[in-house]
Amino acid sequence: MKLFRFGNIGEEKAGVLIDGKKYDVSTFGEEFDKKFLSNGGKERLEKFIAENKSTLKEIDDNVRIGVPCADPAKIVCVGLNYADHVKETGLKQENEPILFLKAISSLTGPFDGVTIPKDSHKTDWETELAVVIGKKANYVTEEDAEDYIWGYVLHNDISERGFQTERGGTWDKGKGCDTFAPIGPYLVSKDEIPDSNNLKVWLKLNGTLVQDGTTQDFIYKIPKLIAYISQFMSLNPGDIISTGSPAGVGMGMNPQRFLRDGDVIEYGIDGLGEARQEFKAYK
Amino acid sequence: MKLFRFGNIGEEKAGVLIDGKKYDVSTFGEEFDKKFLSNGGKERLEKFIAENKSTLKEIDDNVRIGVPCADPAKIVCVGLNYADHVKETGLKQENEPILFLKAISSLTGPFDGVTIPKDSHKTDWETELAVVIGKKANYVTEEDAEDYIWGYVLHNDISERGFQTERGGTWDKGKGCDTFAPIGPYLVSKDEIPDSNNLKVWLKLNGTLVQDGTTQDFIYKIPKLIAYISQFMSLNPGDIISTGSPAGVGMGMNPQRFLRDGDVIEYGIDGLGEARQEFKAYK
Repeated sequence: MKLFRFGNIGEEKAGVLIDGKKYDVSTFGEEFDKKFLSNGGKERLEKFIAENKSTLKEIDDNVRIGVPCADPAKIVCVGLNYADHVKETGLKQENEPILFLKAISSLTGPFDGVTIPKDSHKTDWETELAVVIGKKANYVTEEDAEDYIWGYVLHNDISERGFQTERGGTWDKGKGCDTFAPIGPYLVSKDEIPDSNNLKVWLKLNGTLVQDGTTQDFIYKIPKLIAYISQFMSLNPGDIISTGSPAGVGMGMNPQRFLRDGDVIEYGIDGLGEARQEFKAYK
Repeated sequence: MKLFRFGNIGEEKAGVLIDGKKYDVSTFGEEFDKKFLSNGGKERLEKFIAENKSTLKEIDDNVRIGVPCADPAKIVCVGLNYADHVKETGLKQENEPILFLKAISSLTGPFDGVTIPKDSHKTDWETELAVVIGKKANYVTEEDAEDYIWGYVLHNDISERGFQTERGGTWDKGKGCDTFAPIGPYLVSKDEIPDSNNLKVWLKLNGTLVQDGTTQDFIYKIPKLIAYISQFMSLNPGDIISTGSPAGVGMGMNPQRFLRDGDVIEYGIDGLGEARQEFKAYK
């Protein structure tokens, strides 16, 4: 099941992709929120679709697509989870996963565009597979972790490298700027992604392929990450875990290449759809 | 105006303190959320109280007090903002404020108690003055920053020092554990705190005074912090900024003294009330 939300910012309605076509399911009457995710929403929606398929309204292709998850409470990110990316950043690999939080105010739709912050000289991209939690996870084991996954979303962990590493303190300053967390287009239920360790992850900058990775190269696989994070904090329904970026970011290029006004990125992950953002300097 | 929320977890109702007595104002019909904070809620509530004062029901002292803010979206914390605390931690003072985020799932009521995480050996306290934002702040100046404040809350930035500094990556691992953000009892409107730079900040551990600071010792004052943070991310109504702890934390003692099952802390800040937590080992 591929879910999405459409319409103006703050007024998004529920939609579902069926046979490659986008349908309005706002009359289903539920949001894709923690209640839906944790409390049988998928089964109810499947029943609703089966009973109403013939009357569902198709959505025009030019309608805005928003963040597919309604009101997530936190975004936990994993740093340096692909060996080739560790190498290109020159950052230190730790003995256990690196975690940081992305400010919830950085969420934005997958085609809304990204604002390059004032005084930014090092805004960069990071195409990432992100997990959406379906059930409260607290001290779970790696063996049980799969049970806590509802599904997956495509995420671009936009990062300002100067703010992240040259301004003192934690990475959070360079990760949570407004529009730095484009999520979507689809919230994809886990049954559609039978093997999260074998997905292509790619990104084009102005039409040129610059990220061409695969989740086969994860240092820490998703069940390990869920188990690990749940030792430090509960993961609740709707929470998002972003699993890190493969190589091919601007910071790792020689010379380095950061995003400028007018740049366009397009990116995708197998099974999760594609997204596109134009970058605009803050005015 | 001193606001609070009372009742069972997840079912809190609105209350207000008048002449030192706690009253139920749930019939006012609004939550203390971003809409209330940003859209004239204080004036509406004052009018409601004036019109209904004689019929308001007093609340029993043994009713649970919850987090006074309804659904805050993020907690931005400032590290090392008192010179004496920088010295006791042995951590490096940066040239600009240190920021980190606290997971929203760490929020808890001011008397609920704190759970010491599994495998924790260094759970510590930090009594802090926290600001609650009333209006969206994005690239604001220090001169204008006061306009964006709705009020203040008492916060204990509970921290697991091992998770924070010995487990790789950012501080976020040791700051966002469940129950690590007791907030309240009161959400205090800014008119009641005419000078946020002259407040006593204190904490007792099992009856012994261990923190005895004052916000006179801020390295960065609140307007500076709001202006600074708003260069990296928007601050939205209901967002919480915690301004750092004075000296007297367990990590700074010789020998160090971390929290154990059964320990009790009581703490307060002038004008914001007092809180108390018993610590329990995770079981």
